[in-house]
Amino acid sequence: MYPDCIRNLIESFKFFPGIGDKTAERLAFSVLNLEDEQVEFFLNSLSEVNIKIHPCPICNTITDKDVCAICSDKLRKSNILCVVEDSKSVFLFEKYGMFSGLYHVLEGLISPLDGINPEDIGLSKLFDRIQNGNFTEIIFAFKPNIEGETTSLYIKRVLDNIDIKFTRLASGLPIGADMEYIDGLTLERALNDRKEIE
Amino acid sequence: MYPDCIRNLIESFKFFPGIGDKTAERLAFSVLNLEDEQVEFFLNSLSEVNIKIHPCPICNTITDKDVCAICSDKLRKSNILCVVEDSKSVFLFEKYGMFSGLYHVLEGLISPLDGINPEDIGLSKLFDRIQNGNFTEIIFAFKPNIEGETTSLYIKRVLDNIDIKFTRLASGLPIGADMEYIDGLTLERALNDRKEIE
Repeated sequence: MYPDCIRNLIESFKFFPGIGDKTAERLAFSVLNLEDEQVEFFLNSLSEVNIKIHPCPICNTITDKDVCAICSDKLRKSNILCVVEDSKSVFLFEKYGMFSGLYHVLEGLISPLDGINPEDIGLSKLFDRIQNGNFTEIIFAFKPNIEGETTSLYIKRVLDNIDIKFTRLASGLPIGADMEYIDGLTLERALNDRKEIE
Repeated sequence: MYPDCIRNLIESFKFFPGIGDKTAERLAFSVLNLEDEQVEFFLNSLSEVNIKIHPCPICNTITDKDVCAICSDKLRKSNILCVVEDSKSVFLFEKYGMFSGLYHVLEGLISPLDGINPEDIGLSKLFDRIQNGNFTEIIFAFKPNIEGETTSLYIKRVLDNIDIKFTRLASGLPIGADMEYIDGLTLERALNDRKEIE
């Protein structure tokens, strides 16, 4: 019904998570309204990302360099390691420039219910790095849910013999949130983690 | 912050209508999880669509042929012309196989409020085609809203001196709905119940 290349383009958009038939059709037809230079730019970016991007050999953050910009920055504090679940988290922290230590990106979080076990998320590389490094603090910056907790606890337990401080991001009320929209678990955490006002 | 090619890919996704910063980021990062063959397939489809697809010289439906499959099909009724607002409408009718006449695709609908006037939607090509053809009926299959009505009435008025029947899809289409979200049965009803404009 559609010309072949349109049908193929629709199928291509459906490779992306969360994109179904209708959205894929809409996007494919939108391509027809783009300027030639826009399509050219899109093609180049897509092809470059596929060719150039790879995980940093030290920290796994995606990069187009041999070693990522953060790992090669000698001015960063090399004794604090922030462990995250994906590269996007690294870019999120960097966007706000609030952290000056190093990162380590896992391949997801432990989730036995989804069949994701400790050996599936690239932990041995993290353990090697910590055991051979001179970190004084490991910060777990995971999603505040059961998978995040499980992963933090697992890593801490494996490295228990090392003299190192393990911390996690504080849980609590998001700034600006209305009290009535806060779920019970968050509220409980906020209560337990309450801080003395000095 | 992001590697250049990732940033470019995010910008590329933002060329698409309805895709903002967050979605563009999500899609760009999803590319990293695609198989090489998927990216290759995507690249090829995108490039082919850009190179091969053009409007049919007779009816404006997008095609990868010299003349579209419908215009070159000698078995179709050549005396009934269904005028639509975009190529997607053609594929929608064809999907349900309920119409055996010919189509003509306009470049949108008349919408004075949006600054889209009769001379902006490629009407002269339609008028030429009708005046030089032997159509006995023109069906207007537009979105059931004020722009659709305006466009139908304008075309009918210009061609008033020609002995031809003008019809529009029956009401039954939900007012304000997008053509692509209409189910086949509703569409077929609307086609069968089409009404002559007096």
